[in-house]
Amino acid sequence: MSSEKFDTVDIIRTKRDRGTLSPEQIDWTIDAYTRGAIADEQMAALNMAILLNGMNREEISRWTAAMIASGERMDFSSLGKPTSDKHSTGGVGDKITLPLAPLVAVFGVAVPQLSGRGLGHTGGTLDKLEAIPGWRAALSNDEMMAQLADVGAVICAAGAGLAPADKKLYALRDVTGTVEAIPLIASSIMSKKIAEGTGSLVLDVKVGSGAFMKNLDDARELARTMVTLGKDAGVNTVALLTNMATPLGLTAGNAIEVEESVEVLAGGGPSDVVELTVALAREMLTAAGQPDADPEAALKDGRAMDVWRRMIKAQGGDPDAALPVAKESETILASADGVLTELDALAVGVAAWRLGAGRARKEDAVQLGAGVRLHAKPGDTVKAGTPLMTLLTDTPEKFDRAKEVLADAATISPAAGAVAPLILDRIS
Amino acid sequence: MSSEKFDTVDIIRTKRDRGTLSPEQIDWTIDAYTRGAIADEQMAALNMAILLNGMNREEISRWTAAMIASGERMDFSSLGKPTSDKHSTGGVGDKITLPLAPLVAVFGVAVPQLSGRGLGHTGGTLDKLEAIPGWRAALSNDEMMAQLADVGAVICAAGAGLAPADKKLYALRDVTGTVEAIPLIASSIMSKKIAEGTGSLVLDVKVGSGAFMKNLDDARELARTMVTLGKDAGVNTVALLTNMATPLGLTAGNAIEVEESVEVLAGGGPSDVVELTVALAREMLTAAGQPDADPEAALKDGRAMDVWRRMIKAQGGDPDAALPVAKESETILASADGVLTELDALAVGVAAWRLGAGRARKEDAVQLGAGVRLHAKPGDTVKAGTPLMTLLTDTPEKFDRAKEVLADAATISPAAGAVAPLILDRIS
Repeated sequence: MSSEKFDTVDIIRTKRDRGTLSPEQIDWTIDAYTRGAIADEQMAALNMAILLNGMNREEISRWTAAMIASGERMDFSSLGKPTSDKHSTGGVGDKITLPLAPLVAVFGVAVPQLSGRGLGHTGGTLDKLEAIPGWRAALSNDEMMAQLADVGAVICAAGAGLAPADKKLYALRDVTGTVEAIPLIASSIMSKKIAEGTGSLVLDVKVGSGAFMKNLDDARELARTMVTLGKDAGVNTVALLTNMATPLGLTAGNAIEVEESVEVLAGGGPSDVVELTVALAREMLTAAGQPDADPEAALKDGRAMDVWRRMIKAQGGDPDAALPVAKESETILASADGVLTELDALAVGVAAWRLGAGRARKEDAVQLGAGVRLHAKPGDTVKAGTPLMTLLTDTPEKFDRAKEVLADAATISPAAGAVAPLILDRIS
Repeated sequence: MSSEKFDTVDIIRTKRDRGTLSPEQIDWTIDAYTRGAIADEQMAALNMAILLNGMNREEISRWTAAMIASGERMDFSSLGKPTSDKHSTGGVGDKITLPLAPLVAVFGVAVPQLSGRGLGHTGGTLDKLEAIPGWRAALSNDEMMAQLADVGAVICAAGAGLAPADKKLYALRDVTGTVEAIPLIASSIMSKKIAEGTGSLVLDVKVGSGAFMKNLDDARELARTMVTLGKDAGVNTVALLTNMATPLGLTAGNAIEVEESVEVLAGGGPSDVVELTVALAREMLTAAGQPDADPEAALKDGRAMDVWRRMIKAQGGDPDAALPVAKESETILASADGVLTELDALAVGVAAWRLGAGRARKEDAVQLGAGVRLHAKPGDTVKAGTPLMTLLTDTPEKFDRAKEVLADAATISPAAGAVAPLILDRIS
């Protein structure tokens, strides 16, 4: 007889038959999976049952707690200042973390931003920053603390010790068609954010073609689930639901997104990137006890840029170095006169990915200069034969498949339609 | 890029989102899983999605065909006589194959009965026959053909070449909580029976506490699915739905079930075992073109016993040898005067299993003498203090856990209730 507390098949059957897992069963499941007593095929069957039959609030909360308990917890209390973090569920052209982290740090709120790499059509913050010569993503916990104390902002890779159960589980979900389960997405994100030890958290839940969540109802459910998990764990959490029907800003790639972020930090940049950066900064500052801070001013007067430069230097990067440029480019022209009423985020994201900006497998390298540069956004007037977007890559044989996915990405209409707002809802 | 025709995650997502798999996707799935291009964790997720979202008739039929195509097909056409086989979905005390195969062979219908071993609380035909000294379950295809030509009946293990995809899939379902999916049960059973090459097939679909299918609706759905699969493949198939609320006959074990089978072949034996043996024999003989055969007479006049003895001898067994006897026994007495109105099949099956008659894992050995012998059946009048059942084992430390599961197995009432019929429905 096995000396295990529970039988794995019993647990799978319980969820398969729409039952509720007990706290003890959930603790055991996460622990047993982490140490290999539950096999991958068993966890895959359980994940599919969770995806199709759901988990209630208590189950999700315990599942998250068990994943936190699988690893170390960080503690920023010795910093002597409030901490705030932001998490985006991922979109196309979403470079907001780059201007946002230094901007919030301007006001004395420490920003411990643990970020990831891109997989599939959504880019990764670390991939983008690695376009800056010398910059390194991997910091020890001590280096991270020192930088938070000194500069006030850090964007780095999560250490392997944080929620190891989530790492193992995410890799499994990725190959078993079980990524899109709200309880599993919510617990994956929140276990890392709670273990990270931030005092407050702002979630940017993307909705639309370029996002995980294609409709507002699913996005609201995910946002509510995560806000509840955060609050239950003592983290002041709020979520904005934001539009991902079209890319953020005018760039989707790596170096070109850094370039656009620096424009925003210099007081310029595309209006949607500025709007979302400021809105998220206000939420983070309010959540961290600074409701009267004026982030817009800190972008205009160079204070955010100062922190950015110090943050990049602290991690070995040269903020003045030239960024990598793609070797080849090809321009797509507008096919008609009119108003650009739609520009599909997913198509642009997949095109940037196919051009080399993203990776298909974890072990692939990305092209730092590759991506898509937009010359018009929904609402803009365009003329037939003028540039609509520029495709960038080091490997020109990639142009064809990128153009293929972009064939129907842009809709040009005779008259302007209503442009959807960027911020769709707020959940707190 | 992979050179595979399909992406496994796309296929999982299709079924997860209640879509229909194409014939090409199904063929690829079974082939890719058999050769290892689909990982166990991916197949487990797909199985759970199939269990929860179902498959339509075309999908089940193609899934079955793909499993047949994964291995060899047998061909009995050179025998020059009709063939018929029986499959039971498994119950407690279900020894029917033992008298049935020789009984049908009496009438010139060849019975190629490929059987399995027990796992869990339902016993396996091969385990039972191995109680006969010298008898061996493993035959080559040539040996099987020779015995069918000569004796007319064979009960042996399925070769490894028959539906190998099913073998791999069944082992996976067993540990991932995905056994109880009607499309997967039906395709698993029917792929082996169709590949075996029998001309006609009678299915004994058990219903009740001791069976896979606990209610009549599920059992009917399973029976209809299998009958359709058989007919679509050109196998004349019919199903009886039979009662498994209480054990069949008066024995559940290995040697003691052989002993009871020999009583039936000698023209005696418990009335329910005789009734089901004769009913299934009539179905097999009718399906094989002999509707006027009289199986009841062949039990009474010794013709079935003659074939039995030749069948056992042909596989090395001594039909006259003494059968193994358990070293220890303990008797459970009736607790009151009255009528035994219920005797739970699952409890008796689990008790026999715990006493050593069954195995928990494939690699375990069984005790040939272990099991449960009943002294009364539902409908019988009992007196307080007289024996209700006898528990048999070589290892007396097993008595306690067997008695535990039997504590509420028997219901004794002041007055007789209605006794449920043995044969509940017929699906053709």
